[in-house]
Amino acid sequence: MANENIQLGQAIQTEADSNETDTILHTWLEHYRPYTTNGRCAAYIPALAQVDPSQLGVTIIGPDGKLAKSGDCDALFTLQSVSKVIGFIAACVEHGSAYVLERVDVEPTGDAFNSIVRLEVHKPGKPFNPMINAGAITVSSLLGGKSPQQKIDSILAFIEKMVGRRVSINEEVYQSEWQTADRNRSLAYYLKGTGFLESSVEDALEVYLKECSIEVNTQDIAMIGLVLAHDGYHPLRKEQLFPKEVAKLAKALMVTCGMYNASGKFAAFIGVPAKSGVSGGIMAAVPSHASSPGAPFPAGCGIGIYGPAIDEYGNSVAGGMLLKHIAKEWDFNIF
Amino acid sequence: MANENIQLGQAIQTEADSNETDTILHTWLEHYRPYTTNGRCAAYIPALAQVDPSQLGVTIIGPDGKLAKSGDCDALFTLQSVSKVIGFIAACVEHGSAYVLERVDVEPTGDAFNSIVRLEVHKPGKPFNPMINAGAITVSSLLGGKSPQQKIDSILAFIEKMVGRRVSINEEVYQSEWQTADRNRSLAYYLKGTGFLESSVEDALEVYLKECSIEVNTQDIAMIGLVLAHDGYHPLRKEQLFPKEVAKLAKALMVTCGMYNASGKFAAFIGVPAKSGVSGGIMAAVPSHASSPGAPFPAGCGIGIYGPAIDEYGNSVAGGMLLKHIAKEWDFNIF
Amino acid sequence: MANENIQLGQAIQTEADSNETDTILHTWLEHYRPYTTNGRCAAYIPALAQVDPSQLGVTIIGPDGKLAKSGDCDALFTLQSVSKVIGFIAACVEHGSAYVLERVDVEPTGDAFNSIVRLEVHKPGKPFNPMINAGAITVSSLLGGKSPQQKIDSILAFIEKMVGRRVSINEEVYQSEWQTADRNRSLAYYLKGTGFLESSVEDALEVYLKECSIEVNTQDIAMIGLVLAHDGYHPLRKEQLFPKEVAKLAKALMVTCGMYNASGKFAAFIGVPAKSGVSGGIMAAVPSHASSPGAPFPAGCGIGIYGPAIDEYGNSVAGGMLLKHIAKEWDFNIF
Amino acid sequence: MANENIQLGQAIQTEADSNETDTILHTWLEHYRPYTTNGRCAAYIPALAQVDPSQLGVTIIGPDGKLAKSGDCDALFTLQSVSKVIGFIAACVEHGSAYVLERVDVEPTGDAFNSIVRLEVHKPGKPFNPMINAGAITVSSLLGGKSPQQKIDSILAFIEKMVGRRVSINEEVYQSEWQTADRNRSLAYYLKGTGFLESSVEDALEVYLKECSIEVNTQDIAMIGLVLAHDGYHPLRKEQLFPKEVAKLAKALMVTCGMYNASGKFAAFIGVPAKSGVSGGIMAAVPSHASSPGAPFPAGCGIGIYGPAIDEYGNSVAGGMLLKHIAKEWDFNIF
Repeated sequence: MANENIQLGQAIQTEADSNETDTILHTWLEHYRPYTTNGRCAAYIPALAQVDPSQLGVTIIGPDGKLAKSGDCDALFTLQSVSKVIGFIAACVEHGSAYVLERVDVEPTGDAFNSIVRLEVHKPGKPFNPMINAGAITVSSLLGGKSPQQKIDSILAFIEKMVGRRVSINEEVYQSEWQTADRNRSLAYYLKGTGFLESSVEDALEVYLKECSIEVNTQDIAMIGLVLAHDGYHPLRKEQLFPKEVAKLAKALMVTCGMYNASGKFAAFIGVPAKSGVSGGIMAAVPSHASSPGAPFPAGCGIGIYGPAIDEYGNSVAGGMLLKHIAKEWDFNIF
Repeated sequence: MANENIQLGQAIQTEADSNETDTILHTWLEHYRPYTTNGRCAAYIPALAQVDPSQLGVTIIGPDGKLAKSGDCDALFTLQSVSKVIGFIAACVEHGSAYVLERVDVEPTGDAFNSIVRLEVHKPGKPFNPMINAGAITVSSLLGGKSPQQKIDSILAFIEKMVGRRVSINEEVYQSEWQTADRNRSLAYYLKGTGFLESSVEDALEVYLKECSIEVNTQDIAMIGLVLAHDGYHPLRKEQLFPKEVAKLAKALMVTCGMYNASGKFAAFIGVPAKSGVSGGIMAAVPSHASSPGAPFPAGCGIGIYGPAIDEYGNSVAGGMLLKHIAKEWDFNIF
Repeated sequence: MANENIQLGQAIQTEADSNETDTILHTWLEHYRPYTTNGRCAAYIPALAQVDPSQLGVTIIGPDGKLAKSGDCDALFTLQSVSKVIGFIAACVEHGSAYVLERVDVEPTGDAFNSIVRLEVHKPGKPFNPMINAGAITVSSLLGGKSPQQKIDSILAFIEKMVGRRVSINEEVYQSEWQTADRNRSLAYYLKGTGFLESSVEDALEVYLKECSIEVNTQDIAMIGLVLAHDGYHPLRKEQLFPKEVAKLAKALMVTCGMYNASGKFAAFIGVPAKSGVSGGIMAAVPSHASSPGAPFPAGCGIGIYGPAIDEYGNSVAGGMLLKHIAKEWDFNIF
Repeated sequence: MANENIQLGQAIQTEADSNETDTILHTWLEHYRPYTTNGRCAAYIPALAQVDPSQLGVTIIGPDGKLAKSGDCDALFTLQSVSKVIGFIAACVEHGSAYVLERVDVEPTGDAFNSIVRLEVHKPGKPFNPMINAGAITVSSLLGGKSPQQKIDSILAFIEKMVGRRVSINEEVYQSEWQTADRNRSLAYYLKGTGFLESSVEDALEVYLKECSIEVNTQDIAMIGLVLAHDGYHPLRKEQLFPKEVAKLAKALMVTCGMYNASGKFAAFIGVPAKSGVSGGIMAAVPSHASSPGAPFPAGCGIGIYGPAIDEYGNSVAGGMLLKHIAKEWDFNIF
């Protein structure tokens, strides 16, 4: 595996190749950095509340490994809800998407990410989509492996295949999440009661919260976005990592439900599949066709952004603005 | 105008050009026609309840005017909610999208098309998106023109520019809608009370219900889909009819909210921007980039489908299946 | 009728008889008057917003006509939601309570008085109780009489029988209500759409809003409370005005739903059937058994309070405090 | 204690005293027993699902110990939600009602007993009343005693004081409850997350579910009803067991919220404070004043009913009918 990863590292072009793009990106990033003061770091998890809110970083990886980055692109942060996409894909790979979709719907809700209302109001309580906590907890219970440790190991291995390095769980964040997980436990027990959980509550939560606590940098999630952009095919590894149909499904969910209850606005004003986390990460996948020919940066790229100051919906304030600017300038739009 | 329309008619290629495609399309259509028995014609409007539920028709128009059609493609039906896209675009052209979006949000809801709950629960009661009744009634109040008649005339003129012929209002359906509009009046008065209606309730409803009652065939809505596919540019008229930004916005809304509370499933399983109506119409816009090179039918096309037997969400049963099949076979997918 | 009313006037004992009680009542009232500053006059109806918020008045009428009063007890105010009790009784007298209760339930909701959510969420949309707007509008459509005028006339005649004088509609308030009735129209059209309205929307609203605009003073509503306290029997007229069973039903509704979504707190902390209105009126009925023998003021009394400064729920702030004090001191409590 | 209980036993008059009343009661009971087929035993707890649904029993205890009973009056059943009244009183005795009411409101909701929606929709998530699961779980966390065992022991001792015998927990039912408590755990974790739980979730649930599993017969709950009827004074023990104010509060809550989301109908059609449980128990408290002088059975009595076949709301079908009949015939009504 180590060998493989080195190869993947080589496939990524050095910064020298993309100096000009970096300069442009840097100008944009510093333009939006002051807007970080319009947001706040997530307060409900102590470990998240302590980070420097003025951080902003971005990495973009093109289909040929061309790499552009700027700002706090190497800062480490936890995946949080960005992990929901990865868990969903892994569950579909394990069981087939039909099996997964019998247990979680794919409808956007307009509700907050941790809402429980719809589980009661809409019988029989099938979680509405895998991008909100209820759905993601159900998905966590479906992952391959007998024990929570096996499930997490399989996720970590899956991520390693995509990003080219072994990522690990931030234990401090995980402990923090575990100790403040009342609302998620409430959701999980509700799902258990209505039959939409296939493991014990504690096992599902351990897997879910460990996924949330996986530590990455912007290049890591840009690389996952790159694989999604290519429908599950890793253009640098030159390997199909998961079925095209699952990738399409994941990107559709990112567009309709990926940015919490601001997903509609992201689709309308940015127009690329993206998933955010309350740690301030945004992972975007720009399909190859989603730009005009001759664009300054080739479509078919993955974008990773980190800006821990988030808005009321849970999305990175400056990160969202930066992504919008990039998408507009480089004509990235699936619609 | 008559002259113009003739020219547009000529730009559409004769059926002789597309014989092979028609044959394929015909096979698919007849394969799905029996599934019409799984749905029922909309019952709440008497005039809709009386049509033959076994109808199924489709028209597809390519970027160069290539036309493929089959089944009940010439049957007339009323736009119903398909008109919501047109009204939204017209309002954005009139006021700029910023003005419109201050009065209607762009978030999907997961609720039924005629739901009123969210207007009360989410203060201050801004309708969640223009693809559900509440939002569409607000949009109707924003249309250009002083009287309802002027507003409707401007919509009819706008449609004529897109489809190349003057369409008209089905008076019987309109009267039927008007007399059974209690729920829509309830929504409209609620919006009036919270300040999200810019005309009188009666004027807004007259405009809204007349829009819903505009009579078209599948070629008409395929043509509107074609213009949307090309970001507001009419490839046969060779004219930009509305701004690219408005077209992108409309298509994003079609994906996140266009198919009632089954929109997520349409995005996930079909993957092209589409808007349905309870009369059984589906209008889809396939952007130029949304297929692989060398596809059997060129992307950058508009699709119009009619199948009046609808499902519990309000979407044409066989029409949805046919669209899914077409999208899969011809590799139409924006994600 | 005039003659009758004079007799009723004579049955009420002169103030001379109750000097001591008046003095006590006066002390209490002036103690609570400063709390009027904790509330505000209802703002949504211009005619209500203009009254002096520092007003506070009370009238209590005992079973033998003993009368105690203090403060702004002669000030005129409109019934507003206090009329909901009267309309409900009149509809039950007209059709029998079984008929009425098929069209409106008797369950408290915990929701605001003008809430529409439950009509959609709980199929088939039967209004939850006649003490909230939705239920009261349904009840208005059930009143006896062919035209709105006849219905209102029958209500006015019914009130006259109870209070001993002809009360009238405050036209300015009615016009004000009519012009700001968007939310009530929304409710009414919703009810019409689900079949829970037995007249036209406009007729039901005219009756409902005219009822709300009936002008009374505290003695008037104390007299109605007196009749309710005696299960429909008028102890001064010595006449059964409506069936005991209807009076019990009305008082049960006052306890469970009468004080808007603070009804539970009124039941818990005051313990007598009461109905409030946003104009600041509170009508309470103290059944004969609801106090210990030898209480300073006999149970079997009616209480009318007016204090236009209302709280967030719509109940008179100082009026509620005064009622609580009276009930505690004089040991009025049905539980 | 044993001695005390014997004295209490003696205070209850022998059946010989009340032969005639028993005969009448027996006729009524057998008249309503066939209606048990209109209900079903609670299915969600296996131990409840297995009992004979045709059972129906009643015990009434008058202020002087006069006792009337009939049918399956000696059958044992678990308190279930009837315990909510007892827990609420015990918590008020422990902390004062003001302390308790800061942590649980007293508003009826119209929602199902196990609903979670309102905890999310109404910020900050204070449970609406102690008669629904959410509120009762909060109350369980407030009970006196350091460990769950101490809390339960204090409840059992409190019940012993009222009923004159030591009741015990049905371990089989408790185990059954514990193993099917997903929904209650969901509620409890939600409350923990919003700060409305003062113990650990597991401790609160152990106490709550053990309370629910306390085994009684109709005489036991009639005796508790008797004490409530006398405002906390035990007329046979001649001792004030808890403050009058707490008793009034408990009875008000029984009227507004005691019969699940059919509470309004019980208030309207029966008119005495009552609390039901899904095991089929109904405990009613008839205040001394709540009947006319010379009634066949004296008011100031407690009524215990058991009929395990329950309706959709969770109330005993035949038990409710029998209570309604008794109240009507003997003129019990607080309104």
